[in-house]
Amino acid sequence: MYSAVNTIWVLLGAAMVFLMQAGFAMCEAGFTRAKNTGNILMKNLMDFCIGTPIFWLLGFGLMFAGSGALVGGLDPFVRGDYSTVLPEGVPFMAFFIFQTVFCATAATIVSGAMAERTKFSAYCLYSLLISALVYPISGHWIWGGGWLSQLGFHDFAGSTAVHMVGGTAALVGAKILGPRIGKYDKDGKPRAILGHNLSIAALGVFILWFCWFGFNGCSTVSMTGDDTIALASSIFVTTNMSAAVACVVTMLFTWVRYKKPDVSMTFNAALGGLVAVTAGCDRVSILGSAVIGACAGLVLPLAVEFFDKVAKIDDPVGAISVHGVCGAMGTLLTGLLDVDNGLFYGGGVRMFGVQLLGVAAVLAWVLVTMTVIFQVIKHTIGLRASAQEEIDGLDLHEHGLPTAYADFTQSTSVTAVAADNAYPQDGAGGSAGRVPMDQAVPVQVLSEKQPASDVKLTKVSILCSQSRFEALKKAMNDIGVTGMTVTQVLGCGIQKGKTEYYRGVEMSLNLLPKIRVEIVVAKVPVASVIAAAKQSLYTGSIGDGKIFLYDVENVIKIRTGEEGYDALQGMD
Amino acid sequence: MYSAVNTIWVLLGAAMVFLMQAGFAMCEAGFTRAKNTGNILMKNLMDFCIGTPIFWLLGFGLMFAGSGALVGGLDPFVRGDYSTVLPEGVPFMAFFIFQTVFCATAATIVSGAMAERTKFSAYCLYSLLISALVYPISGHWIWGGGWLSQLGFHDFAGSTAVHMVGGTAALVGAKILGPRIGKYDKDGKPRAILGHNLSIAALGVFILWFCWFGFNGCSTVSMTGDDTIALASSIFVTTNMSAAVACVVTMLFTWVRYKKPDVSMTFNAALGGLVAVTAGCDRVSILGSAVIGACAGLVLPLAVEFFDKVAKIDDPVGAISVHGVCGAMGTLLTGLLDVDNGLFYGGGVRMFGVQLLGVAAVLAWVLVTMTVIFQVIKHTIGLRASAQEEIDGLDLHEHGLPTAYADFTQSTSVTAVAADNAYPQDGAGGSAGRVPMDQAVPVQVLSEKQPASDVKLTKVSILCSQSRFEALKKAMNDIGVTGMTVTQVLGCGIQKGKTEYYRGVEMSLNLLPKIRVEIVVAKVPVASVIAAAKQSLYTGSIGDGKIFLYDVENVIKIRTGEEGYDALQGMD
Amino acid sequence: MYSAVNTIWVLLGAAMVFLMQAGFAMCEAGFTRAKNTGNILMKNLMDFCIGTPIFWLLGFGLMFAGSGALVGGLDPFVRGDYSTVLPEGVPFMAFFIFQTVFCATAATIVSGAMAERTKFSAYCLYSLLISALVYPISGHWIWGGGWLSQLGFHDFAGSTAVHMVGGTAALVGAKILGPRIGKYDKDGKPRAILGHNLSIAALGVFILWFCWFGFNGCSTVSMTGDDTIALASSIFVTTNMSAAVACVVTMLFTWVRYKKPDVSMTFNAALGGLVAVTAGCDRVSILGSAVIGACAGLVLPLAVEFFDKVAKIDDPVGAISVHGVCGAMGTLLTGLLDVDNGLFYGGGVRMFGVQLLGVAAVLAWVLVTMTVIFQVIKHTIGLRASAQEEIDGLDLHEHGLPTAYADFTQSTSVTAVAADNAYPQDGAGGSAGRVPMDQAVPVQVLSEKQPASDVKLTKVSILCSQSRFEALKKAMNDIGVTGMTVTQVLGCGIQKGKTEYYRGVEMSLNLLPKIRVEIVVAKVPVASVIAAAKQSLYTGSIGDGKIFLYDVENVIKIRTGEEGYDALQGMD
Repeated sequence: MYSAVNTIWVLLGAAMVFLMQAGFAMCEAGFTRAKNTGNILMKNLMDFCIGTPIFWLLGFGLMFAGSGALVGGLDPFVRGDYSTVLPEGVPFMAFFIFQTVFCATAATIVSGAMAERTKFSAYCLYSLLISALVYPISGHWIWGGGWLSQLGFHDFAGSTAVHMVGGTAALVGAKILGPRIGKYDKDGKPRAILGHNLSIAALGVFILWFCWFGFNGCSTVSMTGDDTIALASSIFVTTNMSAAVACVVTMLFTWVRYKKPDVSMTFNAALGGLVAVTAGCDRVSILGSAVIGACAGLVLPLAVEFFDKVAKIDDPVGAISVHGVCGAMGTLLTGLLDVDNGLFYGGGVRMFGVQLLGVAAVLAWVLVTMTVIFQVIKHTIGLRASAQEEIDGLDLHEHGLPTAYADFTQSTSVTAVAADNAYPQDGAGGSAGRVPMDQAVPVQVLSEKQPASDVKLTKVSILCSQSRFEALKKAMNDIGVTGMTVTQVLGCGIQKGKTEYYRGVEMSLNLLPKIRVEIVVAKVPVASVIAAAKQSLYTGSIGDGKIFLYDVENVIKIRTGEEGYDALQGMD
Repeated sequence: MYSAVNTIWVLLGAAMVFLMQAGFAMCEAGFTRAKNTGNILMKNLMDFCIGTPIFWLLGFGLMFAGSGALVGGLDPFVRGDYSTVLPEGVPFMAFFIFQTVFCATAATIVSGAMAERTKFSAYCLYSLLISALVYPISGHWIWGGGWLSQLGFHDFAGSTAVHMVGGTAALVGAKILGPRIGKYDKDGKPRAILGHNLSIAALGVFILWFCWFGFNGCSTVSMTGDDTIALASSIFVTTNMSAAVACVVTMLFTWVRYKKPDVSMTFNAALGGLVAVTAGCDRVSILGSAVIGACAGLVLPLAVEFFDKVAKIDDPVGAISVHGVCGAMGTLLTGLLDVDNGLFYGGGVRMFGVQLLGVAAVLAWVLVTMTVIFQVIKHTIGLRASAQEEIDGLDLHEHGLPTAYADFTQSTSVTAVAADNAYPQDGAGGSAGRVPMDQAVPVQVLSEKQPASDVKLTKVSILCSQSRFEALKKAMNDIGVTGMTVTQVLGCGIQKGKTEYYRGVEMSLNLLPKIRVEIVVAKVPVASVIAAAKQSLYTGSIGDGKIFLYDVENVIKIRTGEEGYDALQGMD
Repeated sequence: MYSAVNTIWVLLGAAMVFLMQAGFAMCEAGFTRAKNTGNILMKNLMDFCIGTPIFWLLGFGLMFAGSGALVGGLDPFVRGDYSTVLPEGVPFMAFFIFQTVFCATAATIVSGAMAERTKFSAYCLYSLLISALVYPISGHWIWGGGWLSQLGFHDFAGSTAVHMVGGTAALVGAKILGPRIGKYDKDGKPRAILGHNLSIAALGVFILWFCWFGFNGCSTVSMTGDDTIALASSIFVTTNMSAAVACVVTMLFTWVRYKKPDVSMTFNAALGGLVAVTAGCDRVSILGSAVIGACAGLVLPLAVEFFDKVAKIDDPVGAISVHGVCGAMGTLLTGLLDVDNGLFYGGGVRMFGVQLLGVAAVLAWVLVTMTVIFQVIKHTIGLRASAQEEIDGLDLHEHGLPTAYADFTQSTSVTAVAADNAYPQDGAGGSAGRVPMDQAVPVQVLSEKQPASDVKLTKVSILCSQSRFEALKKAMNDIGVTGMTVTQVLGCGIQKGKTEYYRGVEMSLNLLPKIRVEIVVAKVPVASVIAAAKQSLYTGSIGDGKIFLYDVENVIKIRTGEEGYDALQGMD
């Protein structure tokens, strides 16, 4: 007899945990550079897509077929009988999809830490192996009836089984890969490499938080009986509280330490708090969850700094700290804060000891297996993209994609419009309302014979800050200058940039955005232009800008063919 | 005895209402400028993260502990007995998380209206106070057994209790803050300040709409009994219908009024329709919900115009109109359209009167308390960022973040690649396939001694529209020009931009995107280049562009060291 | 007696299928160009908003009122009795919202194929007609008790009823519209037109995948009874497996065919796999779903190529291939892979025959009706935007929106700061900390009289690759150059771009991103600058760049009024 409510709960959880793929993809894409966006999205997609069939083929059996201490069994295509491991009232297929999406979560954690420099083929191979072997075996120990579960190791929804496995694999992968080009200077000092899109990274965090209600809450795999119903409700509260408190603590911590509340670190902290509470969300009180969140909020930024500055392991998105460190910490804290058996609640040291043993064992398992896997990959098909590929971006070399934002960026917004059929001959696209090019020719040729006027033409090129542009434009209009060209440039000069902190790393902003306004004048005296520019731009502060003068040999207005002085008058 | 279905329903609702934070964050980030994106994301995160523990500490007790007319009770950390207020069959913790996420929704509404100019510390303090005091007390009146609920005031899921509270706080905050720099010209005429990312704003609206099925539908806090099951189903339909009709009406309204269907206003209208139907979604017919949606669709754009042009209160995302105005209106319309008690259904004026009283009372409560709160903040820690901070962007000054899109934008795509270890010495990053720099030196030094050729070099700089680029490129290739440099610039000239409307505000587009194509020629005669450019660009319309000629003193090809004429031949 | 679990299941499904609108909107926006983003978002919003009331007014009745073979009945505002068609234990309103969101899904598919060139008003009209007539009538055949359902046609959740209807309408619409300007060259060879934001497109795919668990899983419209509970669970597994396998197969296929795994095609494949399994997700085994996924993964890229290169129907997002082709294919495969009645399972050819008949009948119905609809629209209000509108972007002309990313892009980041009240007079915005402009004037005017120094000034303009910038900057600093201006440009020269494939179409990247570094020197000898630049940039490879020299007539430092040589010394 299946239970409708239990099954709804499990399936709802499966769908929500699936959606974590979207959260991870957005988070990792946002925190890394635009030139690798297509690649990181693809890796996030493929670890789920490779993991799904491979978990069916191998992983699920290794995790749940049989109750050996160390490993389940071989059951390709899950044809065995799993009635002993199924939650009450839940069909096999519901349990199977639920376990599949959890497996994929562990796999996907790694892509962030190895982002921006890993070969795509190597990543696919790693992904296959973690889903087929590494995750299922330690998963068997914890959830499949293996030795850790027999000892009473408590990891409710996977601080260790999922997150620490992923985080440790991330550590091994990032260490073996080495840092991204440019991450460390000659003296080994880390440089901040900023991501390209904090909006989608933040969206990813919000999506992950939402999904965590399914990850933790639905891990009761049942909604039958008063205790279970109350438990699921309590898990929603503790999960949420830990994440919220972690954010508050990290925000305050970065505010004190780096002088300003760090945005990306605080968003990371939400995930740290969620990972940490995952092991004990069913056993701790609200206060206990707040304590776990506070610990995560403190440890996370320190861990990020440690890996960045001391261990010098380049983890672009903080995956090792979030999933590995907070996962291990949360599992251990469960041994202290479990309201029944925790050390702080008079439960003695036994539970904490088992938690410690479990963390150590899983850590060792993943360190060893992943080191073997990544070293074998490194020495066979190769693990790391070439320097040229990395500098140009993995999108271009691995996927033939100029950029994930092709039309968005300069390059293709220009190329996207084609010339030879820009105005359809057959009028299919509607009336163009322009003079055809053939008719244009004679006018052009004629106009070319017209001599240039001999008035001296000067280009006045003004470099100033963007915020003064409107004042400058108004001043120019007032003295009769009607045409100007504006370009965004970066000024790099003695006017030093500011030093700020990004995720704890000093960052010197020595290229400051400026605009260059160019005006070619004949009628309006150059002196007037200079005077007006100076008046409108002067503030007396460093960074007021400069004016450059150049000689212009001639200017031709295309529409009329007028040259020199005449070309600068009237409508374009 | 807990009910599984009731609890699933409440927890599902809690998770969906949590996800509204993602919706609000995307909406507010998208409708504001890129330089404040990190800040607005952080504010959206922090009001949830501050609200969660503070509602546990204070808010929940004030709202639900005790049934006094004006206020609940003081019950820090919710240790009291809430069995009298709990929905049937729902554990306390499920009800607690459900109420927590509703509280956070009210708090987060305000960030949009106060965006782009509020100090971060001031915002955190405000957020703490609304969650601790303002929302819980009026919430107690309506939902906690207070005087309004005793009178029969009907606000099913919070048009007033959540949205109007948030919208009114937004009004007070935006009024006290004053408009953003540049929002009004000297004559007090509003200027359109466009957001930076309509895609994520639209995503935010879709996410919010999705979450509203939880916000309204799950507010039955039960799925037991035929009436309740039918009611929840009906709420899904009325909620959806109101939003859909609101969009259609606003689209048509803006089409007529501003000549074109306004995208951002129509997306706003979806939220207006959702807010308006929230109070009565359980009591109105499908037709009634369509009427509510139509009213919201009409009132919303008028309210936006009113605050923008008449009241001159700068609300970057329209939060006051969406949540405040539509929230109040929807609550009142419930008094007319309630199929049992509404005025239009023969229920007399009593219900409408109570609705009016409730709206007025809550409005007064929030106006007074929030005015006190914001004035105290203003005169103590300060409410508004400095002008310099606002102009440069809050991201930089408040969070030390150059921009939320650091790698995306020009500045860091250049800085992100570091020189001194661009090509790892130890080959860790794979083979670079380039000649090392040391080897390069001698070649360089030699080539420098080569004299420049004395052929006259000219730079032809062509300014034209992007859509003609391919034609120009082809023409240049045809006459043998093989190298050109393309820059995106903004042309600002007599060729006036168009006037369009953005959310009802006129907007003059007087900086038009152009491209500048620069060609340095020696071999190809300048006259040929000019002739070809004129022929390919001429259409006879305003905006055909200009050609400028400059003298070039010399040109050096780096790879070969060739100078002058020679440097322009062959491969780069 | 209503069933709580059945109704929760249906309502959860409705909410999730609603969220598909977000998925489609992000997908379509991301795969098209930035200049049409506001328009495509608006179309996605409006087809849901128009469809909702029109389905209430007409569509639902035509689909479900009465059990005629060809059409339901006329029941405006659904006042009839639907008790015979309602799922057991589900209130009418739950069934109604569930059907509404399915209808809207069919409508929204079309916007992607007709993107970037369809008139907004024409799209609104089409959208109204498909929801009112086209979808409901074929829907009646399949799900409303019409002739196909009587024959035993099996389309569980709508491979044909929803997706093929949408995909076929997309085919007709895209064919009648004609290709986008620039899509085909003079010889009819397709050009790749890249989208502007792969991140949100990928997000859209992940959201759609998530929602598909509701689309397929909740289409049991019941969670009562062991068989149904097991069925819903099985559907989650088959749905997920098909999508995952489709991605793997398409990734491998594009890797072999285009040499590199294509990102956008692989994301499309996920949708292809989901569409294909939708008809038979309740009847096939896990292996069967993997086969369906594999077929979708193979057929999808071939179909995309076919429409692009052979049929020459321009479908910017691949909607015809994903929804039309995979929808038809999945429906047919159900006739082979149904474990009870499928041909491959010994069920004989009858089921396959019926599936074939159903696909052919619906295809014919949609082809005919949509051809009539689009032709009538084309010859009355017009279907296609004018060429000018298309080139400039539909956002500008249809919605008066300069761009959906106004503040993000160059144009408005400059215009967004206004001059005349940039520094509030009343100090409302906090202290500006700058010298007021009036005071500035005298200093300026004085400084202007200062004569220019007669030192020769030269502008050295260096064009090089972005990755060499840091090396160049360091070299310049070493020789004492303190100021430089950096601009991002596109170089177009003999250094040919690479040929890559985008969705199977060759794409020549002949505009390569470069940077231009400009330095004006007086004190530092030009020869030193050239030597240092050459040394730091030389690698001996094509693309090392060029150095140009120009005469500078004068330079003025605004802050001090110094000119010439002096203006180039010290702080800016």
